[in-house]
Amino acid sequence: MFEEKLQELEPIFYPKSIAVVGTSTNERKTGSRWVKGLISAGFPGPIYPVGSGGGSIWGLKIFPNLRLVPGEVDYVIVSIPRQYVLELLDDCAAKKVKAVHFFTAGFSETGKLQWRELEEQMVRKARQNGIHIIGPNCIGVYCPDRKIPYGPSPRIGVSGSVGFISQSGGIADKLIQIGVARHINYSKGVSFGNGIDLDASDFLQYLAADPKTAIVGAYLEGTRNGRRLFATMKEVTKVKPLVIWKGGRTKVGAEAAMSHTGSLASSATVWSVAIEQSGAIEVHNLEELADSLLVFQQLGCWRGNNVAIIGGFGGGGGGISVSASDACMENGLKLPPLSSKTREKLTNLLGEVGSILRNPIDVSQAIGRGLSNLFEAIESVMEDPIIELVLIQEDMDILLRYFSWEEAKRINDFFIELRNRQNKPLVAVLPLDSFEPERLDIEQILLKASIPIFSTMERAAKAIARINRYFSSK
Amino acid sequence: MFEEKLQELEPIFYPKSIAVVGTSTNERKTGSRWVKGLISAGFPGPIYPVGSGGGSIWGLKIFPNLRLVPGEVDYVIVSIPRQYVLELLDDCAAKKVKAVHFFTAGFSETGKLQWRELEEQMVRKARQNGIHIIGPNCIGVYCPDRKIPYGPSPRIGVSGSVGFISQSGGIADKLIQIGVARHINYSKGVSFGNGIDLDASDFLQYLAADPKTAIVGAYLEGTRNGRRLFATMKEVTKVKPLVIWKGGRTKVGAEAAMSHTGSLASSATVWSVAIEQSGAIEVHNLEELADSLLVFQQLGCWRGNNVAIIGGFGGGGGGISVSASDACMENGLKLPPLSSKTREKLTNLLGEVGSILRNPIDVSQAIGRGLSNLFEAIESVMEDPIIELVLIQEDMDILLRYFSWEEAKRINDFFIELRNRQNKPLVAVLPLDSFEPERLDIEQILLKASIPIFSTMERAAKAIARINRYFSSK
Repeated sequence: MFEEKLQELEPIFYPKSIAVVGTSTNERKTGSRWVKGLISAGFPGPIYPVGSGGGSIWGLKIFPNLRLVPGEVDYVIVSIPRQYVLELLDDCAAKKVKAVHFFTAGFSETGKLQWRELEEQMVRKARQNGIHIIGPNCIGVYCPDRKIPYGPSPRIGVSGSVGFISQSGGIADKLIQIGVARHINYSKGVSFGNGIDLDASDFLQYLAADPKTAIVGAYLEGTRNGRRLFATMKEVTKVKPLVIWKGGRTKVGAEAAMSHTGSLASSATVWSVAIEQSGAIEVHNLEELADSLLVFQQLGCWRGNNVAIIGGFGGGGGGISVSASDACMENGLKLPPLSSKTREKLTNLLGEVGSILRNPIDVSQAIGRGLSNLFEAIESVMEDPIIELVLIQEDMDILLRYFSWEEAKRINDFFIELRNRQNKPLVAVLPLDSFEPERLDIEQILLKASIPIFSTMERAAKAIARINRYFSSK
Repeated sequence: MFEEKLQELEPIFYPKSIAVVGTSTNERKTGSRWVKGLISAGFPGPIYPVGSGGGSIWGLKIFPNLRLVPGEVDYVIVSIPRQYVLELLDDCAAKKVKAVHFFTAGFSETGKLQWRELEEQMVRKARQNGIHIIGPNCIGVYCPDRKIPYGPSPRIGVSGSVGFISQSGGIADKLIQIGVARHINYSKGVSFGNGIDLDASDFLQYLAADPKTAIVGAYLEGTRNGRRLFATMKEVTKVKPLVIWKGGRTKVGAEAAMSHTGSLASSATVWSVAIEQSGAIEVHNLEELADSLLVFQQLGCWRGNNVAIIGGFGGGGGGISVSASDACMENGLKLPPLSSKTREKLTNLLGEVGSILRNPIDVSQAIGRGLSNLFEAIESVMEDPIIELVLIQEDMDILLRYFSWEEAKRINDFFIELRNRQNKPLVAVLPLDSFEPERLDIEQILLKASIPIFSTMERAAKAIARINRYFSSK
């Protein structure tokens, strides 16, 4: 499916060479910083800075005009004022460039006819010459697999299996940042702004065909071709989970979208219906989008809704168990009673007074009974055949009041061990509290071991219920 | 209102002396740690450790029996096995103790008749002797104003104006932790567990009358006297905002509540209706409770729903403005257009290309135009007469890509300056990202200056809309 798109957009995600137009000897200029980013990230092909002033930057010669670049140019990144873009497209045609990414802004998003018409001229000229346009008004491609960083920043994450598209450069940026923090690893992504030539449908088709992408996320504000987008979404969801966040659902949001990417947003209801009918998953904000990508990445094709919650590490499990139950139940998960065998085992291990041995399981009575008792109790819950996923509620402030830092690390190492030994997912909730540095340490330890982490039980429950609904309906 | 409760519960929140029963020379014993906590926090009255083994701990003599304590005892903290509690109550009667707090657990929450009957005997004995019981199965009082820390921990927050009650010791603990992290400052609070004698109504009446408490938060799981609780809630909301989180709304949550505090939970709908009719505010999780207490503490009696969002500090404001609009609009806030005078001023200051000068205001074009331009732009939005509150969306990862740390601090100092100069609230959203240490630093700077901070726009919008609804209906 969409095999031709894979070929067609290959020079965009895997360019052999990149030219950056709008470079100068001034190191702070956007074009110059972009060149630096590509060098630092280790882009493996030739990088050609282009700028009318000539000279050199970061040890590379600046070509006064794109036509003067000696080698072939697959991909051009453009950061020049809008009045020069048509002329530049002529240069691109002369050089047989495959794709041009316009960081340059100030087109249809201004709401002015003059600049909308310029966009139309750009598209005509590009198509006449077999050139693809990304943008304008966007940050373009991110491809860790080809060592293409996102924008002028040299930072680049680990290459992984999550692809994304975004009509907003800022949202794409946040997704990448969150990816680094939460170990969501991207195969590639693209921010395509006004999308005057290549738009959401093209990039979705590419990601559907891309063998390195297993999950697709999208932030969309509007479309100029709803019919094509809907047809594409339906095709994508046949092969890969597709998670869509539609921005500009409200009146003011839609107005902001209009002046952001020139998008004519249709009603939120129309979008919601289309997303549902296409088999994609709708989310409503950045956190939900990231949470969904994280569980799809870490849990694979898991489905189930019988979960066990284990809480009260170090105490305080009662009220937390109650609220965790509400969060799970209200979001569509089930907390089945444990088998009588497991309950008997837990009573022997943890005693009865004050501990909740139903499900949620409050292990606070394990304090003073030794870690091996605690570990055995957790494993017996994990082994209960009715349980399909174990949710750990780990409150760092309480944990570290009763356990040493070394013990806390041993407990978390045990989670990892258990996760590797048992063929059942384990998800951890680590609420923010006043032990922030320690919490971040533990979070990194668990994330590295592919255990998804959430900051609230609500977010964990929503994300788990979402993946279950998705794979149950397939 | 409830002036008699203020008198009646004075020995609980402001005891002249405290005895801790269940202490030994073993420093790790709960009772011993409780004594240490009181000493470290600086409780100003006499502290009497009591334990059958005698000896001494932390430089204090351990009395083998409560009756042997030489001075008067207002308040007794009890951490002994449940089989000795009736005997202890006899000792308390002999010593004319005013209130006994039972940390001891294993009563009605076990679901067993024998232990439920013991609770009934306790209540009878206490009432016959004019003694109040807090608990059992709880952590009891937290009163920074009287230097009473929460439980065996010596940590104590800054004394403030927020009071709370909680049926769960763990939830109370989390509230206190979050309070320290987010500068929610408590006057006093209490976790009362099974609440067999003093219950939610008593403590709510006390907090309503307490001159040091301006806002009341509550985590409740159930009640044995719904009629009295409802009447009390109605009275409290006449004088102070009351925010209620009902835990155990779902079937499994309610079962967990039963084995946690022996609460017979009635249906979630009944609770929601009662909360609404009483004029209190319902929230659904810990984050919403803390968010509400924070805005009530910081914004006072503010009401309004015309907000301005300013985002794009350092770039990337477009998509973030769109999503911020959705978050505000979907939660009941309004984003009115700015006056033409303000818009003209913004165009002069920030230019037009690429920036959104409606509301939300995307100031990303301010990069390269100098901080004074940026500051003037923000101030002009703050001065626009239609705007009642300014929401700042500050993305640390983007900010620090374009500004130095010194500049970032100057920008935040300006927010504080502005907040102090203008008589309008300023609320900041600082999303979690990969710049966590820097984010936490800025968060602390703003929180110290009484600017409420949220980690997502949704949470900020919900909390602001909630306070507006509350004061608009008064």
